[in-house]
Amino acid sequence: MTFKSLIDSILEKLQVDRLKRYIPIPEWLFRYQSEYLVGDIIAGIIVTSLLVPQSMAYALLAGLPPQIGLYASMLPAILYPLLGSSRVLAVGPAAVDSLMVATALGKLEPQNTPEYLILALTLTFLIGCIEILMGVLRLGFLVNFLSHAVISGFISGAATIIAIGQIKHLFGLKISNTESLFTLVLSIFRTIDRTNWVALGLGLGSIAILLFFNYPLVKWLKRRRWSDRAILPVSKSAPLLVVIVGTLLVWALHLDRAAGVKVVGDIPSGLPHFSFPIFDLSTLETLLPIALAISLVGYLEGFAGAQSLARKRREKVSANREFIALGVANLGAAFSGGYPVTGGLGRSVVNFAAGANTGLASIITGLLVIVIVMFLTPMFYFLPQTCLAAIIIIAVYKLIDLATFRRMWLYDKADAIAWLTTFIAVLFVGVEKGILLGAIVALVLHLWRTSHPHIAIVGRLGETEHFRNVLRYDVKTSPQVLAIRVDESLYFANAKYLETYIFNAIANREATPLEYRPDVKKILLVCSAINLIDASALEILESLIFDLRLLGIQFYMSEVKGPVMDKLRKIGFVDYLGEERIFLSTDRAMRELAGI
Amino acid sequence: MTFKSLIDSILEKLQVDRLKRYIPIPEWLFRYQSEYLVGDIIAGIIVTSLLVPQSMAYALLAGLPPQIGLYASMLPAILYPLLGSSRVLAVGPAAVDSLMVATALGKLEPQNTPEYLILALTLTFLIGCIEILMGVLRLGFLVNFLSHAVISGFISGAATIIAIGQIKHLFGLKISNTESLFTLVLSIFRTIDRTNWVALGLGLGSIAILLFFNYPLVKWLKRRRWSDRAILPVSKSAPLLVVIVGTLLVWALHLDRAAGVKVVGDIPSGLPHFSFPIFDLSTLETLLPIALAISLVGYLEGFAGAQSLARKRREKVSANREFIALGVANLGAAFSGGYPVTGGLGRSVVNFAAGANTGLASIITGLLVIVIVMFLTPMFYFLPQTCLAAIIIIAVYKLIDLATFRRMWLYDKADAIAWLTTFIAVLFVGVEKGILLGAIVALVLHLWRTSHPHIAIVGRLGETEHFRNVLRYDVKTSPQVLAIRVDESLYFANAKYLETYIFNAIANREATPLEYRPDVKKILLVCSAINLIDASALEILESLIFDLRLLGIQFYMSEVKGPVMDKLRKIGFVDYLGEERIFLSTDRAMRELAGI
Repeated sequence: MTFKSLIDSILEKLQVDRLKRYIPIPEWLFRYQSEYLVGDIIAGIIVTSLLVPQSMAYALLAGLPPQIGLYASMLPAILYPLLGSSRVLAVGPAAVDSLMVATALGKLEPQNTPEYLILALTLTFLIGCIEILMGVLRLGFLVNFLSHAVISGFISGAATIIAIGQIKHLFGLKISNTESLFTLVLSIFRTIDRTNWVALGLGLGSIAILLFFNYPLVKWLKRRRWSDRAILPVSKSAPLLVVIVGTLLVWALHLDRAAGVKVVGDIPSGLPHFSFPIFDLSTLETLLPIALAISLVGYLEGFAGAQSLARKRREKVSANREFIALGVANLGAAFSGGYPVTGGLGRSVVNFAAGANTGLASIITGLLVIVIVMFLTPMFYFLPQTCLAAIIIIAVYKLIDLATFRRMWLYDKADAIAWLTTFIAVLFVGVEKGILLGAIVALVLHLWRTSHPHIAIVGRLGETEHFRNVLRYDVKTSPQVLAIRVDESLYFANAKYLETYIFNAIANREATPLEYRPDVKKILLVCSAINLIDASALEILESLIFDLRLLGIQFYMSEVKGPVMDKLRKIGFVDYLGEERIFLSTDRAMRELAGI
Repeated sequence: MTFKSLIDSILEKLQVDRLKRYIPIPEWLFRYQSEYLVGDIIAGIIVTSLLVPQSMAYALLAGLPPQIGLYASMLPAILYPLLGSSRVLAVGPAAVDSLMVATALGKLEPQNTPEYLILALTLTFLIGCIEILMGVLRLGFLVNFLSHAVISGFISGAATIIAIGQIKHLFGLKISNTESLFTLVLSIFRTIDRTNWVALGLGLGSIAILLFFNYPLVKWLKRRRWSDRAILPVSKSAPLLVVIVGTLLVWALHLDRAAGVKVVGDIPSGLPHFSFPIFDLSTLETLLPIALAISLVGYLEGFAGAQSLARKRREKVSANREFIALGVANLGAAFSGGYPVTGGLGRSVVNFAAGANTGLASIITGLLVIVIVMFLTPMFYFLPQTCLAAIIIIAVYKLIDLATFRRMWLYDKADAIAWLTTFIAVLFVGVEKGILLGAIVALVLHLWRTSHPHIAIVGRLGETEHFRNVLRYDVKTSPQVLAIRVDESLYFANAKYLETYIFNAIANREATPLEYRPDVKKILLVCSAINLIDASALEILESLIFDLRLLGIQFYMSEVKGPVMDKLRKIGFVDYLGEERIFLSTDRAMRELAGI
């Protein structure tokens, strides 16, 4: 008997079908089958072993006590699967979000103070509200306006900042938080002679373990014919191993007192108190821009992860439902003493690979973290920060995506420029301003690209009905009839370009011989690649036709697409030009106008 | 003997040809013919009669003494034709620019103070430098990114503000400058009971004269078979007539002292001293953003005027040369006590219609203004401000372009929204922020429009080689092969849309029956309307192909354009997909894949 039939029979009695419309009960719960259970439990355990050290490390990165990371891993992990459309997304603290929290709140209050913590809670609450609002207003499509170049450049820049920021923990240097990356690098160089060699040894040892488990061990086990399913729990246990070994070493050899190795220290035991974010208006207003930025970045990360994994099983995720689910997860974090969360791609991939079948895996993770928070936090006292720094560095260095930049440079310079602008702006101008600047540069570059479209003078190819570029093919043309094909929709940014092109052709004696056509009496615009003519372009087209008429030159069009033609007819353009001047095909037009 | 041959012979002796490369001597001077002279002189006089009252009125609008408007009409009118590519552009103060000067500088210093005047000079100098720089860097194309909707909405909004601002002068109300339009309207209503009835009478009388000369008189003269050439000087003399009649009435009846009618008052006689804009860095920095805004708006106005008039004679204007010429005109204004100038469309049309053949007309205008400034300024003492207000109102109300808005609403809602956003933002947020906001809205709307492109499932039309939309035509399709045509270039803002569309088709049971195609084994992307695939879209396309392969679905393409194919080949995409999966024509693809 499946869970579904059991639940269905209960629900039927409760007449819950009507209720379902109002209270969202997850799909997967209705269709749960007993054979899902083993995969879900194993995946839940593996993700927990990865999540616990990561969440503490990310909380420190965000300028918060480590337990806040744990708190943020409980309720969100339980809430998300109840609403989200992905079955395998692992929700919790994430690296880039943590950096954004640190840079934004660091300007308002000193880190690690109660005031800072309250700001973080308020921020989390705001992010939750914004994300839910975005989902309800169906604004999920907005994230499409961030190009891959901008996202990749942004993540790479943020990861670089995070990695450089961890160097001080790795070397055991005592450097207070700095304003800019430049001063941070300077401080590192200035204090490098005060390196704590024990901390550095622990850190480098941790990195060695993490790297070994990442690649050589996996390769070795594969050669011994272990299955992927069996390799995964072993290779992913590396962070947990680093934490255990590091903690034991510090504890056994008293490295904290004897060698000055910085440890995590006291973490309050037991569940967090119910927290209530403050609600004074001026704080909300100050936090709004950064909340908006983190909402979008967090959503971007979460949705990309959910989508790429869902697709592998031919499942579907809903952009707007993801917004709502992540928003509720953030509200959960805000009321349980946590800080902003999102779906992490790295942990979600592990969840997926470890065999998670449904959201139950995530719920198990959340419950396990609750157990750890209730009983096991004293064990983290001797956990050295250098080990956490090593875990962060290994987690983020994969995000520095120079390969994408190189590829873009080869394929499309405009995208490469957008990548580089975002990357450099994130490093040197700031995290939020960087992504904004990058997005604007990408938009302007795109417009610039479409603002000088490919325009070809076309002629008849042999005796066929095909008309092709005179530069690429040996075609028949007429000196009196200029047939022009524009390979782009006509809109405000490129309509003047077409106009200038045409007036160059008929009036500019300095233009190239190919372009200058003083004998032209008729101009035919081939519209096969024009998907849209906006009002600006229409205006320019009309004044062009008017001015051409004054010069005794007639204007014709061919192959106008259906939807474009409908609109042109409605506004009276077709009457203005003359219905008989719009030809169905270029073939027919040139036959009639030029006799060729 | 033409002027040209005379000048040529002189220049030949001076070996000036080599010099010409470095010092720009205007084309029209070389080709000057004696028959041009009459037209140029008449046009010069008519434009002067229009320019003198307008320039004083606009200076008052900009918060400056009236003579500043006259000063700004001398040197710029002489300098522009020496460099500009338009033969008929009339350069001088303009309404919208004056408003922008007033709103920007009004925040820094009180109007009509020496400090305010110095700021205006510095601003003019900055605008000149920016425009020259723009021209040298060939950035003229930048103005194309302002759509017609934004420009029209902006001009309409600014004209509305100007017209409302003149009401207080028309009614003779004493209202100090207000921060916002709202408080201005409020002040007008609050003080309307203190209307100066004599001023109002003079103002309304002026408006009546101006309107009568604009339409009924022209109509009446036409019926009496006057030629257009003869009507023009009569109809365009209305502002001069208003000024003369108004001045005489005030002078004869002592209306300034007896009835409290506000007059222009003392205007210093003689030429202005050579002025030198201040150069302290912090002032320049403060003025930079507004200088940039006025440069662009001024250039936009000037270039649009130059272009539309040049076209009527099959002449060409150069975007970048115009920038330089207007920049030099502004520098001229900066060093001769003026304020920002540009080419006014209205006066240029008059210049053109009055028969101006070359830039000499503009030079004559400049010289006439110099004569007026030297000898005739005392005559403006009794000129009532209410008459100038009437002239401004009649000049700007034509700029409120609701017809364009209505047309856009019919033709294209996105453009109409951009118009309205700009208009409202200019009215209530501010002039510069308004145009910026409008530009951003227009860009986002354009992206939004291309972010969900028209996607058609296509099939074979009868036995032809044409493939058309299954919704519009009765075509043959195959249940195993899904042929999709996207009517837009693929780039970051719409690539995800295509991906979602395809996954909806194969995986979403809730999609419409037409869209849901669970039996699909092959997907063919018809690329006839794809002019570009950017790096983001390429990335998404590759992950789409990868994910489809996991699901056992093969991906094919057809009709990929030459330039797109070149780039896809270079980056290795063609090898990744398989050369044999890209078909030259949809016909061949469907024959091979589906056997239809």
